[in-house]
Amino acid sequence: MATGTPQPAFVLVRPQMGENIGAAARAMWNFGLDRMRIVDPRDGWPNSKAVAMSSGAGRLLDEAQLSEDVPGAIGDCSFVLATTARPRDLTKTIWTPEAAMAECARRIAGGEKVAVIFGPERAGLENEDIAPCNGIISVPVNPEFASLNLAQCVLLCAYEWRRASAEMPEVAESLAGTELALQHEVDHLARHYEDRMEEAGFFFPAHKAESMKVNLRNMWSRLPLTRAEVQMLHGMMRQVVRWRNKKAD
Amino acid sequence: MATGTPQPAFVLVRPQMGENIGAAARAMWNFGLDRMRIVDPRDGWPNSKAVAMSSGAGRLLDEAQLSEDVPGAIGDCSFVLATTARPRDLTKTIWTPEAAMAECARRIAGGEKVAVIFGPERAGLENEDIAPCNGIISVPVNPEFASLNLAQCVLLCAYEWRRASAEMPEVAESLAGTELALQHEVDHLARHYEDRMEEAGFFFPAHKAESMKVNLRNMWSRLPLTRAEVQMLHGMMRQVVRWRNKKAD
Repeated sequence: MATGTPQPAFVLVRPQMGENIGAAARAMWNFGLDRMRIVDPRDGWPNSKAVAMSSGAGRLLDEAQLSEDVPGAIGDCSFVLATTARPRDLTKTIWTPEAAMAECARRIAGGEKVAVIFGPERAGLENEDIAPCNGIISVPVNPEFASLNLAQCVLLCAYEWRRASAEMPEVAESLAGTELALQHEVDHLARHYEDRMEEAGFFFPAHKAESMKVNLRNMWSRLPLTRAEVQMLHGMMRQVVRWRNKKAD
Repeated sequence: MATGTPQPAFVLVRPQMGENIGAAARAMWNFGLDRMRIVDPRDGWPNSKAVAMSSGAGRLLDEAQLSEDVPGAIGDCSFVLATTARPRDLTKTIWTPEAAMAECARRIAGGEKVAVIFGPERAGLENEDIAPCNGIISVPVNPEFASLNLAQCVLLCAYEWRRASAEMPEVAESLAGTELALQHEVDHLARHYEDRMEEAGFFFPAHKAESMKVNLRNMWSRLPLTRAEVQMLHGMMRQVVRWRNKKAD
């Protein structure tokens, strides 16, 4: 069964190769989308090549809503965007994928039904398909080389949908089961090293000793050390001392 | 020859299938990236399947920098990010593709050399590959279905690079050779329709006429009409009048 999450329907218009329908399903499900609609697929429906390619996302194909034409596929939606790489002789608002999916998220949160339509592999959407849409999504590709395929276009839109609809931290720390060291632990580490280095005669010449110590302390504080790393650094220094004392024997 | 644009190098580490190397080249070049580096490709180099798959982006393969190991591939860089879907038992900062590419753009603008490394198809990067990197890029996929392939991961990072480095308007109007109508043209249109509708007895009953007129005028102003559309609307009304007059004959 489809997830209950409100989301845009992705409509494949007259797709040609079953493999591409399957790859589009995978691309959608990678980003949590599972409402596929299909308009007049060239090779009929169901399509065994689509199924073979969709591994893991086959449910989207089973549940896909089939229509004979674009109006039939988008009739229940109040906001529809068409993806197209090429400029068209139609007056339409052009959205980046990011802005488009943010707008879709806003409208869906307001209770609207929203769809995004994708054209057939070679020819892309016809003006007749695009005219009833409320705007165009254009991926900002390299003007010298614009060769996104159907599943790639679906992937980028689905990715932007997820970015728009899920709150993701931009940057996070992966602490792998440990915690960042506390201030007093880092301070203890800094004193440990400073004391041993003092003993070892590292802070030389004397008139530079203070600034050398400041630099060393600053380094410990600047590093985002974990507790495990602090323990490891203590252990390393203890070992150096053991090793040195052994030599002195 | 490679474009002169400063950009990150994308490093494919121990890629297996030539087809995927070719598809990665196409994905990069779609978003204007052309510095590929390859570490120890399974099937040797050059690879005819990579070339066959790269159509239009073959130059990236010709110019790709080949290395035996990861340190050899990233040695000239001061900031390196590793792409990996799986959480690793390493303490690293995790970046979204967007934040990562914004950081890369910032560092590159400051003169740094930057690389992004991508692991082999099945196994992904080893901890040994990731350890020397400055952080991890993690694509926010559906936790129930994370199955991005190599070229898709390259595509999303390249897309985010282009978003970070090129100034794209979020929303733009495609006016298809015409211009938006000027205020006085819209006003003229509004009066034209109002007059004819008055004549036609549309504003009825009388006590509602004023608010009906306001609503109609408001509609014309709210629509982002082009000059061509204004002309068309004038023509439609003129034709309706002609048609009506004919009938009255």
